[in-house]
Amino acid sequence: MSNLELPVLGQDDQVACCTPMVREPLGEDAAIDLAKMFKALSDPVRLRLLSLIASHEGGEACVCDLTGPFDVSQPTISHHLKVLREAGLVGSERRGTWVYYWVLPAALARLSSLLQAPAGAR
Amino acid sequence: MSNLELPVLGQDDQVACCTPMVREPLGEDAAIDLAKMFKALSDPVRLRLLSLIASHEGGEACVCDLTGPFDVSQPTISHHLKVLREAGLVGSERRGTWVYYWVLPAALARLSSLLQAPAGAR
Repeated sequence: MSNLELPVLGQDDQVACCTPMVREPLGEDAAIDLAKMFKALSDPVRLRLLSLIASHEGGEACVCDLTGPFDVSQPTISHHLKVLREAGLVGSERRGTWVYYWVLPAALARLSSLLQAPAGAR
Repeated sequence: MSNLELPVLGQDDQVACCTPMVREPLGEDAAIDLAKMFKALSDPVRLRLLSLIASHEGGEACVCDLTGPFDVSQPTISHHLKVLREAGLVGSERRGTWVYYWVLPAALARLSSLLQAPAGAR
């Protein structure tokens, strides 16, 4: 992206990256790239972590907010957060004692647009 | 679903199943269910198969249309199609010699809505 402003989702400049798969078949490279992102979403704990981050007040969550709801250890949570970060779904930053996480909206929008369903199909 | 008509996507009766994760955190059961669908999407060949089916003329594709573009064997394609079907992403029907596949739009819409990005987040 050439400027620091984030795109308004659904605008024309996003179309090239987010063509719904009902409109045209995916190329090999795009499929490899997207499959990695879907793999990061293929674990229930990671999905819940992502949704906790995404829905957290202010759009970001401290790692200290993310361990309570789960029956898994802190290192396991950290591992899942790393997978989400490496898949390009969340960003993170250390501030003092804690690491903060936020979702990367362009990544979510890319997947969401890809999966847009056909209105008239059965 | 109580009738044979498919829902028009984006209508109110779909909202309960498709709340964006930026709006509220996912529950455990929903996360387990959705993770299975994302797992089906976590393979590049399956993603390309799904997109070939989804974008095929008439909204459905014969298995005979789906083997040509891939460097993998027919049994491998059949296995991937089975995974997509078991995840609830495609439907299928045998007609004469061939099996035909189509995407299930409500499933795609559910995932697409779940991943809708926050417009104002960073």
